[in-house]
Amino acid sequence: MAETEIKKSSHVEQHFMASDLIRDIVIGMSDGLTVPFALAAGLSGSISNASLVVVAGVAEIAAGSIAMGLGGYLAARTDEEHYASELERERREIVELPDREREEVAAILREWNIPESAINETVDAMSKDPEKWVDFMMKYELGLEKPEPKRAITSSATIGVSYIVGGLIPLSPYMIFSNANSALLVSVIMTIIALFIFGFVKGRFTGSKPFKSAFQTTLVGGLAAGIAFLIARLIS
Amino acid sequence: MAETEIKKSSHVEQHFMASDLIRDIVIGMSDGLTVPFALAAGLSGSISNASLVVVAGVAEIAAGSIAMGLGGYLAARTDEEHYASELERERREIVELPDREREEVAAILREWNIPESAINETVDAMSKDPEKWVDFMMKYELGLEKPEPKRAITSSATIGVSYIVGGLIPLSPYMIFSNANSALLVSVIMTIIALFIFGFVKGRFTGSKPFKSAFQTTLVGGLAAGIAFLIARLIS
Repeated sequence: MAETEIKKSSHVEQHFMASDLIRDIVIGMSDGLTVPFALAAGLSGSISNASLVVVAGVAEIAAGSIAMGLGGYLAARTDEEHYASELERERREIVELPDREREEVAAILREWNIPESAINETVDAMSKDPEKWVDFMMKYELGLEKPEPKRAITSSATIGVSYIVGGLIPLSPYMIFSNANSALLVSVIMTIIALFIFGFVKGRFTGSKPFKSAFQTTLVGGLAAGIAFLIARLIS
Repeated sequence: MAETEIKKSSHVEQHFMASDLIRDIVIGMSDGLTVPFALAAGLSGSISNASLVVVAGVAEIAAGSIAMGLGGYLAARTDEEHYASELERERREIVELPDREREEVAAILREWNIPESAINETVDAMSKDPEKWVDFMMKYELGLEKPEPKRAITSSATIGVSYIVGGLIPLSPYMIFSNANSALLVSVIMTIIALFIFGFVKGRFTGSKPFKSAFQTTLVGGLAAGIAFLIARLIS
C-alpha cells in the first residue's frame, strides 16, 4: 500500500509539474501570438511604413513580456509569502488555541460522516503529531498547497520567453517587407496557421478537444486583430 | 453546530467571491496600466506625432482587452467542461468500479490517520450516499472545486473592462497634447501615481503589505516602460 501511495503521489506530482510548465507557456504564447499580431494589423490600417509597425510591435513585445514575466514572478512570490505566513499562523494557533483547532479538524471530518468516536481518536492522534496537524489544516481548512520553491523564477522566465517567441511570429513579415499592407497579408496567414497549431497542441496538453481548442484560439486572435484593425482605421 | 457550519461556509463563499472579483480586476488593470503605458512611452521615443501614439495605444487596448477578456472567458469555460466531464467519470466509476473507488476513499482517509475500523464504517456509509461519495472524490482525489456557473461571463467582462480603464489612463495625455514628448511627461507622472495607488489598494485587498505592493506594481510598470522606450529608440 505504502509503495502504491508513493507511486501515485509522485505520478500526481509529475502531472502537476508538467501542467504548470504547459500552463505558463500557454499563458505567455496565447497573448504573445494575439496582441502584437492585432497591434501590427491595427497599425497597418493607418500607417503604410512597415518599419514604424516594427518599432511599435517590438516596444509592445518588450512591454508585454516584462509585464507578464515580472508580474508573474511577483505574483508567485506573493503566493509563497502568503503560504509561509498562514503556515506560521496555524503553527501558533495549534499551540495557543488547541481546543478551537481540534474542533476545526473535527468539523471537517464530520462533513464526511465519519463516526464520532473515530473523530475523537483521529483528533487525539493528530494533536500528538503537530506537523501532520498543521499540514491537515493548511490543506483542508485553508485549501493551500505548498508552493514549489523555484516556481517563481521558472514561471516568470517561461511566460516572458513564450510571449517574445509568440510575438515575433506575426511581427517578422513587417521586418522583411517595407510596405505595411503587403506585410499584413503575410502576417495574417502566418499567424492564423500559428494560432491554429498552437491551439491544437494546447488542447492536446490540457485535455480539451484539440480541434475545438484550435478554432477557439484562432477565433480570439482573429477577433482581436480584426477589431484592432477597424478601430485604428476609424480613429486615424 | 449545523448553524455554525452554514455560517462558516457562507462566510468562506463570500470571501472567495470577493477575491475572485478582486483578482480579475487586478489581472486586467495590472496589464492595462502597464502595457499601453509602456507602448506609448516606447513610441514617444521615436515618433513625435502624438496622434499616431493614440492610434497605436487604442489598437493595443482593443487587442489586449479582447485577448484577455475573451481568453479568460474561454479558459473559464474549459474549466467548467473539465469539471463536468470529471464529475461524469466519477459518477460512472462508483457504479462500474465500486471496489476500486472504495479503496481510493480509504487511502485518503488513511493519510489522515483515521482508525482502520472507522475507515470501513465511513466508506460503507459513503457508498450508500452516491452524491457525497462523488463529492468527496472530486474534492480530495482530484482536488477540483465546483466552478461558479456565471463565473465565465463575469470574469471575462471584469478583466476586459479593467484593462480598458487601466489603459486609458496613460493614453489620455496623448489625446490632449499634440506633441508626443510633452504628452509622455504627463503620462509618466499620471501613470506612476495610478500604479502606486492601484498597487496599494491591491495589497490591501490581497492581504500583502500595501506599501510593498505599491512599490512592486510601480516597479513593473516603470521597468516595462523604460525598457520599451530604450528598445524603440534603439531600433528606430
